[in-house]
Amino acid sequence: MSTGDGKFMRLALELAKRGDGWVNPNPMVGAVIVKDEKIIGLGWHRNFGGRHAEVNAIEDAKRKGHDVRGATMYVTLEPCSHWGKQPPCADRIIEEGFKRVVVAMEDPNPLVAGRGIEKMRKAGIEVEVGVLGREARKLNEIFIKYITTGTPFVSIKLALTLDGFIATENGSSQWITGEEARLKVQELRKRHMAIMVGSGTVLADDPRLNCRLENCPEKVKVILDRSGRVAEAIKAGRRFKLFEDGRAIFFTERPELFEGIAEAYPITEPGEILRKLGELGIDSILIEGGRIACEFLAFADKFYLFYGPKLFGNGIKPFECLKVENADYALLLRIESIERLGESFLVTAYPGDGDVQRNR
Amino acid sequence: MSTGDGKFMRLALELAKRGDGWVNPNPMVGAVIVKDEKIIGLGWHRNFGGRHAEVNAIEDAKRKGHDVRGATMYVTLEPCSHWGKQPPCADRIIEEGFKRVVVAMEDPNPLVAGRGIEKMRKAGIEVEVGVLGREARKLNEIFIKYITTGTPFVSIKLALTLDGFIATENGSSQWITGEEARLKVQELRKRHMAIMVGSGTVLADDPRLNCRLENCPEKVKVILDRSGRVAEAIKAGRRFKLFEDGRAIFFTERPELFEGIAEAYPITEPGEILRKLGELGIDSILIEGGRIACEFLAFADKFYLFYGPKLFGNGIKPFECLKVENADYALLLRIESIERLGESFLVTAYPGDGDVQRNR
Repeated sequence: MSTGDGKFMRLALELAKRGDGWVNPNPMVGAVIVKDEKIIGLGWHRNFGGRHAEVNAIEDAKRKGHDVRGATMYVTLEPCSHWGKQPPCADRIIEEGFKRVVVAMEDPNPLVAGRGIEKMRKAGIEVEVGVLGREARKLNEIFIKYITTGTPFVSIKLALTLDGFIATENGSSQWITGEEARLKVQELRKRHMAIMVGSGTVLADDPRLNCRLENCPEKVKVILDRSGRVAEAIKAGRRFKLFEDGRAIFFTERPELFEGIAEAYPITEPGEILRKLGELGIDSILIEGGRIACEFLAFADKFYLFYGPKLFGNGIKPFECLKVENADYALLLRIESIERLGESFLVTAYPGDGDVQRNR
Repeated sequence: MSTGDGKFMRLALELAKRGDGWVNPNPMVGAVIVKDEKIIGLGWHRNFGGRHAEVNAIEDAKRKGHDVRGATMYVTLEPCSHWGKQPPCADRIIEEGFKRVVVAMEDPNPLVAGRGIEKMRKAGIEVEVGVLGREARKLNEIFIKYITTGTPFVSIKLALTLDGFIATENGSSQWITGEEARLKVQELRKRHMAIMVGSGTVLADDPRLNCRLENCPEKVKVILDRSGRVAEAIKAGRRFKLFEDGRAIFFTERPELFEGIAEAYPITEPGEILRKLGELGIDSILIEGGRIACEFLAFADKFYLFYGPKLFGNGIKPFECLKVENADYALLLRIESIERLGESFLVTAYPGDGDVQRNR
């Protein structure tokens, strides 16, 4: 790794983030072209199906009158070697006469991993792999999960009191967290293709389940409605805000109730639901329901736990379906970060490695 | 405030902290003497009944051959004007010919506040008050509470899972937090004169309730034992570690059971217990029990909530005695800081101001 490699790759990662929410189920990718220590081109993958970051960076350099021959390309993901919606970037990089390519991470798809790198090396390009690889893998954790498993990345988002309740006994919960936390939730919605709640939340709160940030794509709304209560309410004349934009998908034991009303599948088992969503091309799902979160707990890839500065003493527990009797067998999480958001704070965590922490 | 005032006062505050745990129920006080922009003397209040910070700083300067005449004294608390266990510092400062005195905060005791400052001003010394006053008040929050109310500063310390449980349903709780968090608890024990638990904790865990840091004074152990179960267990032959060092005080409905065993008072109402502890000269109490914490919730001055990276789903709730039915009437806290401690984290909070946050 030569001096500056980290700096240029960090810039490429920042550029990649500009695709946040728009590229799914593709990865976010950024590219920086450097020649004689100077940046001559910047590019990122802007939206699903659009041109790749590498090509955008090359076009950017050319538009500014630069010659990319002999330059170095920094790119956050291995350039593709196959025809997808776009021609292979590895070929383009070879054609354009790049001297060196620095890649943050290999393509996570085991079927193609390393091929783009190999192709470029065979063409005589000096290729370096792994610069800020950890950061790149984290940036594309959703893509990596989806491309390797075919099922969506599952995030559970909850708003809790400091004593762990998502609502009082009678269901009252507005507002546990403050405005800054609620803004952060919008960012999470932006990152995920779909938002999921249970029918109870729809009937009680009539949420729009959309993303209210500027420059945010429409969301897929996924509702688990075992007995078809939402369909019945609609037939009884109720209207729900979740239908105002984006696509709505119901999972129910009574799909017939949804005919002519909404897309519905006769599936209610969490693992099956996730497989179906994967088939439908959905790479990520943000579970916002309270009680529904526990049903998907075993499938959770990430936890976003927002805590508001309050105590309820008693109330609705988010993971009540989990019955831990011995503290040694608690479900372990690995805390990634803690972020203050005004009067509230956000704990971001991943499922932990049980064996590391147990019995010590 | 002249340039450097903040810097020197910050040093004085750091010196004050060296008395942490040793000066109670006195305040922590630090003093820095500066002449011609140079520090010539440092002092702090080292232990209860010992010489005051100002005198220690003057002696330090003299020992090093400096002349304090015409110098500036930075002191974190208003110099005293009355005879206590030590002669009045204000008189000494006047005698020594100081030109200027910078004070972080007035004496919080309303009966004497401002008198030391007035005395020095009358003697022709330039006195400035309020430099880093907020920090000084925070440093001595225990002293301020005790001197103004006569009752101890009450801190509630709990170790919780991320979903808010202090133990599983059957009482299993070892260990919710990690080693770094447990070390932090020792620091809290150092700062507080007394540690309080319920008899259930004593009978179940037989804790020593001591401070295991190097250089830490013995603790007063306070046990709420309504029915005298600990006394009965002792009579039945059990021994408890809490008697190994420091003073133990029991609050019970059956003080007769404790005759010849331990100091006991026939008081069990939380407010009364605190008043009694205040009379006994105890300025601060760290409540470590789980269920007992809720009984003292209304009297809590500060919360130390340690969270471990675990989920129990169900279990023992720390504030179950609190019955909030409407989220608008949650008990509000004000989060002061969030500190990562290895795999765990500590939320430090104060009781919040209800009206500010409600209904917004």
